Amino acid sequence: KGLTIWSPIPLATNVVLSGLGCLGTMYVIPHFREKFIKARLFGIDLNKMTTARDEDGVLIRPYQGPKVPEAMGVISGMIFLIVMFLYIPFAFAGYYATPKDFPHHKLTEFVAALLSIACMCFLGFADNVLDLRWRHKLLLPTAATLPLLMVYWVNGGVTYVMVPNFLQPMLGGVVNLGILYYIYMGMLAVFCTNAINILAGVNGLEAGQSLIIGASILANSLLQITRLENPAGVDNHVFAVVFMVPFLATTFALTYHNWYPSRVFVGDTFCYFAGMTFAVVAILGHFSKTLLLFFIPQIANFLYSCPQLFKMIPCPRHRMPSLDPKSGKIDMSYCEFTPDELPSLGRLIYKILKVTRMVKVVEHKDGTVKMNNLTLINWSLYAFGPMREDWLTICLLTEQAVCSCVAFLIRYKLAAFFYKVVE
Amino acid sequence: KGLTIWSPIPLATNVVLSGLGCLGTMYVIPHFREKFIKARLFGIDLNKMTTARDEDGVLIRPYQGPKVPEAMGVISGMIFLIVMFLYIPFAFAGYYATPKDFPHHKLTEFVAALLSIACMCFLGFADNVLDLRWRHKLLLPTAATLPLLMVYWVNGGVTYVMVPNFLQPMLGGVVNLGILYYIYMGMLAVFCTNAINILAGVNGLEAGQSLIIGASILANSLLQITRLENPAGVDNHVFAVVFMVPFLATTFALTYHNWYPSRVFVGDTFCYFAGMTFAVVAILGHFSKTLLLFFIPQIANFLYSCPQLFKMIPCPRHRMPSLDPKSGKIDMSYCEFTPDELPSLGRLIYKILKVTRMVKVVEHKDGTVKMNNLTLINWSLYAFGPMREDWLTICLLTEQAVCSCVAFLIRYKLAAFFYKVVE
Ligand SMILES: [Mg+2]
Ligand SMILES: [Mg+2]
Repeated sequence: KGLTIWSPIPLATNVVLSGLGCLGTMYVIPHFREKFIKARLFGIDLNKMTTARDEDGVLIRPYQGPKVPEAMGVISGMIFLIVMFLYIPFAFAGYYATPKDFPHHKLTEFVAALLSIACMCFLGFADNVLDLRWRHKLLLPTAATLPLLMVYWVNGGVTYVMVPNFLQPMLGGVVNLGILYYIYMGMLAVFCTNAINILAGVNGLEAGQSLIIGASILANSLLQITRLENPAGVDNHVFAVVFMVPFLATTFALTYHNWYPSRVFVGDTFCYFAGMTFAVVAILGHFSKTLLLFFIPQIANFLYSCPQLFKMIPCPRHRMPSLDPKSGKIDMSYCEFTPDELPSLGRLIYKILKVTRMVKVVEHKDGTVKMNNLTLINWSLYAFGPMREDWLTICLLTEQAVCSCVAFLIRYKLAAFFYKVVE
Repeated sequence: KGLTIWSPIPLATNVVLSGLGCLGTMYVIPHFREKFIKARLFGIDLNKMTTARDEDGVLIRPYQGPKVPEAMGVISGMIFLIVMFLYIPFAFAGYYATPKDFPHHKLTEFVAALLSIACMCFLGFADNVLDLRWRHKLLLPTAATLPLLMVYWVNGGVTYVMVPNFLQPMLGGVVNLGILYYIYMGMLAVFCTNAINILAGVNGLEAGQSLIIGASILANSLLQITRLENPAGVDNHVFAVVFMVPFLATTFALTYHNWYPSRVFVGDTFCYFAGMTFAVVAILGHFSKTLLLFFIPQIANFLYSCPQLFKMIPCPRHRMPSLDPKSGKIDMSYCEFTPDELPSLGRLIYKILKVTRMVKVVEHKDGTVKMNNLTLINWSLYAFGPMREDWLTICLLTEQAVCSCVAFLIRYKLAAFFYKVVE
């Protein structure tokens, strides 16, 4: 049923090329460490004992410590792209005997998806090198989605969405979003790229969460391919599989080098690359709502951060947890303020957070309080106590995995409450 | 006749978007100067009076002078890509009423061409940042051509070539090169990217020669569109037009900033981007032999350089001409050696060059000689005398333009001697 991309030889080639991509990434990354450092693409890992501190255990500025090459995601991204390029002729091998059945529009979508990913990888690298401003972090993913959206449009892509049951009396069964659908797709790319970039700061976290999200997409699409009966439905998920396998393979190799203690950092370029890859497969596969379910921890992190992001509660420049040099464990970072001096909405939020025990609060006698910064990482340290950095990563990745299980439950058990037809 | 891409509205949109791209590039480049310098992407212009010299007029090392941002071609390249993305829906506007006529394979080629160009721009920028080795300069264009070649293959692209008259008794009228044709196309990309990169070193030269080559391609394709009768022949040249107009527009803006005295340098990223753009339009338009004719000065430069490149004559590390601080003019650079100590082939070449007066030679009493380094730039200075840097650029660009005229003569007057059917 469906595209012959979903047949043994193309799939086997995809897996074999992915394996080679994994080995290639594994091998190439260490060879480029020096080049990146020489090009001043490096960072200093603040949560390490090797980083210089004064007698009180406070980091010396400017930071001194081993240089860890940054933006190494560009290598896994490039190898991913080369694997996908080499895979193109195999993907469509089933049609060479019958050229008139050739699914040209599918090949176009395939190439346009790669073009969007390549542009995002490129722009992410430029961001890493040039250290662009915040507004560029919203503009660049939008620019990179352009080729995909344009081809989607030229191919006459659907812009209909199903309406949830409770809105159907008002809107009918389906509603054509038209141009809004394109804006939604563009925003999806902006969201995915930045969501991964924001839940970061611990060795192995960006790459690790991308592995779990990627694996969830892969599992969902494999499940759908076995469940669905109509060929068009299957086709929607075939691309997701053939994109995710090389993505997971190359990202695995990157995670290996990025794992605690990090020999390389992945950089914004990786977050952009990973987020865009997720966005394009969800757009082409028409499962963007399911994709968003796999971002529950990132959404939770954003919601939890909102009081600080919108300055209702003071927000220090850095909210990363930090190493306690005595215990060798990571502990949360705090902000300090006087609750009575907060704006009224901030005071209310503070009280709710405190009463529901969603934050750790230390009250001082002078009326000021010390509260952990509002990030999912700090929350995890509050919930599970200080721990070594690799355990913190494992803890956060476990949360991500648990949330993916919840996402599957919502998608396959609860969705029936909202939608009559759940495919 | 042919694709409706060749009709007023798509063409007008292409021109309007190109105009906006030109203005955008003009405006954006100066805004990024500081960012690039801060990211250490800069060079020092050695042929300027503002660069520090000692009393003897010799440049002080390490070089001291105004920092000129490097790799700015990445901006014109990115804007070119965005223009092309936005143009996609207009290019194919003629088919929305009749979806079954939609030329899907053309859209795929279009997107694949953009993917190759985007990859090359990206890899070129990575090269500028990371300062890759020589072997990468051959590998990267090959990797970037992959998507185009793969799509060419999947689309069942022709690999037949016409055989010149004098070989026809042996080979017949056409010969199928098969895989060799793909190797040829890959090598074409490697050649085009590096040819522009090598004829460089004078303010405005890389961008200027790309303008002339691009304009020659545009003129040739416009000519072919008016001459040719069969729609397939016209179609081959339509892409070249719609790629070259935005390319010329954005490159013009880049040249403006890169012109003497350069406020920005274009970088390897521009040479890669320009070369790849030429290669893809020639591959898709099946006019690679004509394209090579537009590279006569680059080929001449390479042939003239060969004795030094292959070490038959000593080759100093830098062969750039240099500023004479007294006159303010650029003069050639020399290499010094003893002819009798050269290998026999080198001695023969030296004698030929000397007798044919293709080099300037100064003989010393001790048997050593001083000969200008074997580059087209030095040859031009030898032929026309020392001159100010902008006049040298104009001189070299005039040579390029004259060679393009010769190329047209060869293509349209002499080709009939070699080929029976000349389209
Ligand atoms: Mg980051
Ligand atoms: Mg160069």
